[in-house]
Amino acid sequence: MSLRGLPPSEIFERAIGGERRALGRLITLVERDASEAEEIAELAHVKAGNAHVIGITGPPGSGKSTLTGQIVKLLGELGKRAAVLAVDPSSPLTGGAILGDRVRMEDVASPETFIRSMATRGHQGGLSLAVPGVVRLLDAAGYDPVLIETVGVGQVEVDIAGTADTTVVVATPGMGDAVQANKAGLLELADLFVVNKADRPGANDVRRDLDLMLDLSHVSGQDQRTGMRPEIIMTTALSGEGAPETWSAIERHRDAIAENGQLDQRRANRDLDEVRNRLLADVERRIDRMLAGESVGGVSDVLDRVTRRSLAPATAARELALKVSEI
Amino acid sequence: MSLRGLPPSEIFERAIGGERRALGRLITLVERDASEAEEIAELAHVKAGNAHVIGITGPPGSGKSTLTGQIVKLLGELGKRAAVLAVDPSSPLTGGAILGDRVRMEDVASPETFIRSMATRGHQGGLSLAVPGVVRLLDAAGYDPVLIETVGVGQVEVDIAGTADTTVVVATPGMGDAVQANKAGLLELADLFVVNKADRPGANDVRRDLDLMLDLSHVSGQDQRTGMRPEIIMTTALSGEGAPETWSAIERHRDAIAENGQLDQRRANRDLDEVRNRLLADVERRIDRMLAGESVGGVSDVLDRVTRRSLAPATAARELALKVSEI
Repeated sequence: MSLRGLPPSEIFERAIGGERRALGRLITLVERDASEAEEIAELAHVKAGNAHVIGITGPPGSGKSTLTGQIVKLLGELGKRAAVLAVDPSSPLTGGAILGDRVRMEDVASPETFIRSMATRGHQGGLSLAVPGVVRLLDAAGYDPVLIETVGVGQVEVDIAGTADTTVVVATPGMGDAVQANKAGLLELADLFVVNKADRPGANDVRRDLDLMLDLSHVSGQDQRTGMRPEIIMTTALSGEGAPETWSAIERHRDAIAENGQLDQRRANRDLDEVRNRLLADVERRIDRMLAGESVGGVSDVLDRVTRRSLAPATAARELALKVSEI
Repeated sequence: MSLRGLPPSEIFERAIGGERRALGRLITLVERDASEAEEIAELAHVKAGNAHVIGITGPPGSGKSTLTGQIVKLLGELGKRAAVLAVDPSSPLTGGAILGDRVRMEDVASPETFIRSMATRGHQGGLSLAVPGVVRLLDAAGYDPVLIETVGVGQVEVDIAGTADTTVVVATPGMGDAVQANKAGLLELADLFVVNKADRPGANDVRRDLDLMLDLSHVSGQDQRTGMRPEIIMTTALSGEGAPETWSAIERHRDAIAENGQLDQRRANRDLDEVRNRLLADVERRIDRMLAGESVGGVSDVLDRVTRRSLAPATAARELALKVSEI
């Protein structure tokens, strides 16, 4: 029984009826921004809005995949139908996603779990457009919670984790300078910190550092976002220690934001951000066509003056901005 | 003698006449995107185009600041009037730039050297708009070469280094996973690799890894950009060893791209990228005003339908895209 040739509405019915292959097909169509993508998004948007969306991020080597695996295992034992979206950095040399983590996660997950890897490159319109569409589908198909695992290196990956209902930031002892540089951004995002590899020397130092930073950021108003101070949980993901405590803390966060109205606010913001990102991507495409001289006259003349040094880029941009309404 | 109250053209004349305070004032105006910024950019653009712009990037802790300092010291000894633009990550807690490197660099640089730090946050329109304007001013004021030092973590910082005439990527033994993740992006950018801390164990392994990656990327066509294979130079920046060899390799790269036409092409692309970035920033501001309901009617109704789940974000974006021409 091939899914090809079926109308999107029919594939969608099968997906929400539990047919995993149908769901996989819809995700592929949404990822590719295929012509059916908008119809699928409409169907899913109406149906979605129930899943608890959890972002799990941290630097490479922090063990966040292992921790995600342990949480997924626990969710299986609790009888929950969870989905995992693993956003992997892709190599520009091969274009493929690194699937190592995925395989390991499938070993521990219950058969009910839906696991999907997404490469970070090669999406029409970029990752920040592709991920919300996939999360919406998983949500509409009844998966709850939906876990998004991203590597906390690039701004895009960090942003994606930050759009979740609950964002978990995984730290470890000995992460070094890379995280120092990123710490600030991650600190602002975190609803919950996990200090993984808690059996290693230095784990308590990491905890103390995070505590200190939270004290400082309280002054600059960070806690006002939720009115809550992020908890810090110690884990040893390899043995599974701390995974139940992590899950409890995630649930506490969700309950708290559901009660104070933050949950609805975050979801509305997520949808509005998607509208904004799609609009920007659309205009960016139009500007590129304009700059390539494909849609509006007089553009190449302005650009020539820039490269001949008779017109500064800022002035050229102001002149061309008047033409944007024509594109 | 205060510079305030003087017209930009007068401050500009003083700056190209060698008055450092005047140049500093112009940079501040450009950084802030002040009302005088466009006039200053016009004056500078006509005058600029002579400086060799060198980007130096690498992960935190790779010693690129120390290496930059050693190169600057050498340039002083060679009688060159160099400028350094150090793009530092800024703390969201303090908003200030980390000036440690700058102080150290001033110890070794000749008094002719112009050194400026730029925080990575707080620029009107973002760093990718602020940096080209400052480089243009340093160029117009007769500094040559202009070195831009950025931390190779964020995409923006990496992009900035990548717009230089010659981009130097600094690697070290034991950089760990963070660089693994970034390696791909940095590899594409590099016109020249420096393996710093060459006295440490593992330095030759780094060299071999880079060599191997260059072999692989040759297949995927990376070398076609310049027709050149990036050199790999071993340095111990702390003692200054390898700095003269690094400078020679930088000059070889410049001579080669000047000869094959790449240099003019890169400079034209840099200016055209700035036009594009400024146009995008302008449209982004207009879209945000539209989404805030400030410029076009009917927008809040569309957004309400999204948050009430009767309209998917993709459909909303398509409807609103029709209004972009009105903004």
